[in-house]
Parts: sequence; C-alpha cells; structure tokens
Amino acid sequence: MNAASELTVADVGEFGLIARLKARFGESGVGVVQGIGDDTAALRLTPGYLLLATTDAAVEGVHFLRATIAPRTLGRRVLAVNLSDVASMGGIPRWALVSLSLPVKTPLSFADGLAAGLGEEAARYGLALVGGNLARSPDRVVLDLTLLGEVEPDRVLYRSGARPGDRLLVTGTLGDAAAGLAILLGQVSASRPEAAVLIERHQLPTPRIAAGRAIALSGFATAMIDLSDGLASDLGHLAEESKVGGVIEAARIPLSPALRSLANATGHDPLDWALRGGEDYELLLTAPAERVPELIAAVTATGVELTEVGEVVSEPGLWLRQTDGRKEPLGATHWQHFG
Amino acid sequence: MNAASELTVADVGEFGLIARLKARFGESGVGVVQGIGDDTAALRLTPGYLLLATTDAAVEGVHFLRATIAPRTLGRRVLAVNLSDVASMGGIPRWALVSLSLPVKTPLSFADGLAAGLGEEAARYGLALVGGNLARSPDRVVLDLTLLGEVEPDRVLYRSGARPGDRLLVTGTLGDAAAGLAILLGQVSASRPEAAVLIERHQLPTPRIAAGRAIALSGFATAMIDLSDGLASDLGHLAEESKVGGVIEAARIPLSPALRSLANATGHDPLDWALRGGEDYELLLTAPAERVPELIAAVTATGVELTEVGEVVSEPGLWLRQTDGRKEPLGATHWQHFG
Repeated sequence: MNAASELTVADVGEFGLIARLKARFGESGVGVVQGIGDDTAALRLTPGYLLLATTDAAVEGVHFLRATIAPRTLGRRVLAVNLSDVASMGGIPRWALVSLSLPVKTPLSFADGLAAGLGEEAARYGLALVGGNLARSPDRVVLDLTLLGEVEPDRVLYRSGARPGDRLLVTGTLGDAAAGLAILLGQVSASRPEAAVLIERHQLPTPRIAAGRAIALSGFATAMIDLSDGLASDLGHLAEESKVGGVIEAARIPLSPALRSLANATGHDPLDWALRGGEDYELLLTAPAERVPELIAAVTATGVELTEVGEVVSEPGLWLRQTDGRKEPLGATHWQHFG
Repeated sequence: MNAASELTVADVGEFGLIARLKARFGESGVGVVQGIGDDTAALRLTPGYLLLATTDAAVEGVHFLRATIAPRTLGRRVLAVNLSDVASMGGIPRWALVSLSLPVKTPLSFADGLAAGLGEEAARYGLALVGGNLARSPDRVVLDLTLLGEVEPDRVLYRSGARPGDRLLVTGTLGDAAAGLAILLGQVSASRPEAAVLIERHQLPTPRIAAGRAIALSGFATAMIDLSDGLASDLGHLAEESKVGGVIEAARIPLSPALRSLANATGHDPLDWALRGGEDYELLLTAPAERVPELIAAVTATGVELTEVGEVVSEPGLWLRQTDGRKEPLGATHWQHFG
C-alpha cells in the first residue's frame, strides 16, 4: 500500500472486501438457514410458495460510467432493477447473490460506496445477502446480481394472462427516466430546474414492490410486466405472450410535472419519452374493467398512483389513439443489445 | 454483416443469441413453472426441501484465455464449478441462470461453442436454463452463472459439522488440475505423454454430484466441502467452520498414475500439487470412523473412489504426517484474489 495515494481494493484483498460487503448488507433474513460462508446458501421458502429467480448485470462503459453515477447510487440501482422484476410477478423479494468483478486498481472508496448502496436498498426491501463471488477484472467493473423471491402460486402474475376487453394500467408516471438520460447524455439542457429530479428518476428507479404485492393479492389483475424497455416495447412483450393487441390512449398516459415542464421548455414531445424511452421501472398491468376502481384503490393505498391508459383488444398489433380519435400504429421497437 | 469476414454476435443480435442459447440449453425441467420469457422464472421446489443457491464467474484474462480453452470447454467448466458447490452440500442441481457479457466483435462461433458447452453439461446433470441476461461488454467476455438446487433439510451437509475423531475422506485423486495448469502455464513440459489427461482434469473438472448425493443420503457424513482452493486451504475452511483441527497422512493422499509419472519425470513433489494446487473439485468430507467402510461402499457404487486421508482433531491447526511419522504444519495458504 502506498500511503500517498488513494487506497485500492488490492490493499484490503478479497477477504477484506467480502467483510466490508457483509458489514453493509445484512446476512440474516427470512428463511436463511445458511448464508455466506459455505459452498452454497441454504434457504427455506414459505411452504407452498413458488420461487422467483432473476438476474441482471451492470457493465462499466455499457450500463454506467463512473464519471456520471456515484457508486452508492449504482449499487442501489442494480438492486432496484432486479427488484422491479420480482415486483412485476407480484412477488416478495428475499435473497440476493452478488457477483462483482473489479480491476485491482479500483479505489476502495468505490467498492465501499457500491456496498453501501447495495446494503441500503437491501435493507429497504428486507433482503438478505446469501452468496456471491468476488473476482479480479482486467479493466472494467462488472456487477452481476441474482435476486430470489417468492410468491403464492395462485397470486403470481405472468405476462401471458391478458384478455381482450381488459384495461391497461400503469403505476407512477412515464418518460421521466428517458428524459433524465437525455439530460445526462447532453441531448437536453441540464440547466433546467427539473433536471435533478429527472436524472434521479433515471439513476434511482423505485421498484414497485408494495404496489406489485397489492396488485397480486387483490386477485384482480390478469397480467403484469415491468417497464424496462419503454411502454411501447413492453406492451409488445405482454401482448405477444398473451396473444392479444393493445390500444393506448395518448391523453391518459401519466406524465410528471417535471417531464411536462422540460418538454414544454425544450420543444420535445413528452409522449416520445413516455412511449419509447425505457428504464422507468413502473408496472404495466391488465385487469377487467369492473375491477379497475378496486385495483386503483388498492394501489393508491401503497402510496403509488395507478392510471388506466388503454385497453386490450383481440386483434394483434399495438395502437396509439390520439386525442382527436385518430389511431396510429404504436410501432413497438424492441431494444436489442448488439443491435 | 460482412460476408468475407467471420460472423460476430452483432450479426445475430441479442434475440438471435438468446434463441441460440435456448436451443442448446433445455428450458423445461423438474419444477419449472415459468422459464425464460417472463420477468423472472417461477420454480417449484420439492415440498419440504431446502433451496441451494450459488454463483460463480469466469472473466476473460483472469479465469481463462480464449487462446488456451475452447469455448465449449469453457461453457462446461463454468457450469461444472457451480455444480461442484451443490455437490458439496449433498444437493440436487435443478436450475441455472446465465449472465453473459460479450464484446460486439465476439465471433458467433465462440458464443455458439459456449452455448454448446453449457447445454451439454446441463443435459448431463438434468439442469434447466430458467433465466439470464445478455449484455454488451467493451472488451472482455464475462460469464456469470447462478445455480439453484435443492436438498432434504435432514441430509444437507455443511462445512461446520466435523467432530474430533472423525475421519477425513476425499473423492477421486488430488493435484491433477494443478499439474495441468502448470503445463498450460509452461512451468512444466507439455511434451510428456500424461500432459493431455492432466490438462483436461484442469479444464474439465467432473462435479461429484452422484457421489455427493450418495454421501448425503447415507446420513453418515458430518461435514463436506469441495476442493476448489486445494486440500490444505479447503481443509482449513472446514476446520475453521467446525472449530476443529486436522491431520492429513501424506502417504494416503490419492494421486493419479498420470500425476505420479509427471512428478517423477520432472522432479516435482506431487504432494505439493495435491495439497496446495487447487481446482480439483473433488469432495472433502468427514465421518465417524465406524461409518467409513459403508461410506466408501456407497460412493464406490457411483463409480468414484473415496479415500481416507486423515482425521479430525480437537486442537486447532492443520498438520501433515509424513511416512516417517514426523508431523509438520500444513500451513494453509488461503487463495485470495487481489492478493
């Protein structure tokens, strides 16, 4: 260790890093029979529940830049994105495994910040860290997270249950994350007063765990998905799995005051961000029309808005109905890596 | 796509890659209620069983070089290493999640080879691929694998159950993988006739799933761990968790004919590879002396050798008893990344 320079992860070594991560991220939790410290974790599900499992990665230079996101925010974000997947099944998140690859010259402060963010988000949702892997990486930080949860088999919600006539509903407001990213990328002025809130909506999405549980437990929803790729694209996934089509009412799409204000000031179409931008991590769900008021009441009780935005139709295809009644194709464009 | 050059992953895109991976790696399997294609997998454990969860990564330039390992072998190896962790708990592997980060210029043949290797190893052990993530990586291949399994709560084996007086036993032969690595690294002549078999033992370890199950179901073992870091180091982990010490008999350590032959020809001490080399992925377990014959019979029935190599003692510390009766400290050196 060179006292004159900043400490790096090499100065504390693998076991030191693991200790620092464990100190931030609770190891005990519901159903943890054996956590970190053996060859695998041993976990006890609630009897009769289904296990939910999902994984997502954050690669430096692709998903994030160290220059534009604080390590603590990054840690929270990676966990939030995985939590959102569990929320969209109506599930309860329980356990996380973290696989972290770090260059040896990574500042220790970066690793500590990441651990703090992971720990903070985990505590917020009652997660336990039950396993992981630390590896050296030649030049980039790669953070892979696996999240395990559980759900009642008669309450789990898939993408495939939507039926013609069902209403389409979304939580929260849409497009904020895409506008935040546009600001970060310098495509839109960062000097607007609403910039900070939109950037935060991009960097720190709120996984809709409580809303997802309320929706699942109500028994009223027929299908659900989280909005990671954008409303047009994710509605496309849901419609495809359910073998239906969908019509979105442009005027009903919930937009935040910040997004409207930025769009007005810069001449952007806020609907473009809401429909085609991604990473809002709100929930899109379907339910029979007669159940909509009860669903809205159940979700509102968790402190989250739920808005009806359109309907499920039997003919394949996605449509946007403008305020003047014109219907135009929504043109779902699937986001692809390696595109 | 440039017809004159080799196809890359960019030519088939994310969805093309996912389709190729799914085609190689079965999606259906025991307990798969919802596999790939929704926000999370939904899985049904055998009622009353514990869930086992582990994760491990392979980073290009750290854990492997594309020049020295075929992609198919790499795919099999990454899965095998995770399977070994489930074996060491006495568990049944069930489901895998694969997180793969690839540079856009990765040859499609590399991705296909990796998928073929993952699929081959998965088929061998009855695993289903239930989730994953594909991401672009700026310059290195990173493969993160999460493996889920299950085990009877009254049969699971931890590192912590060893008791003074128990015998120490290992499956298979030790040191082969370390010798194979020494050959790959050019530290030992690659022209020896036994080189190929030792290199294969390094690149393609056999996870001891059937042996692990036989050991767990016998009810005779008290603790178990897999040998990833080397006998000295992994015995150290087991002893630490069990709050005991251990004595290894040098003459009893099982060595393969190939290892003995290479050691003889090159003047190396084969015990050094067996004790301090790693990555054999054999099992180290403990059991009361009176149960050893039955355990050996149960494991031999799975086609794997089980050898008594020493005993558990109450005083902390690890010792090696030489053939002349001298006891010397085993000096467990814990392998550390970032060391």
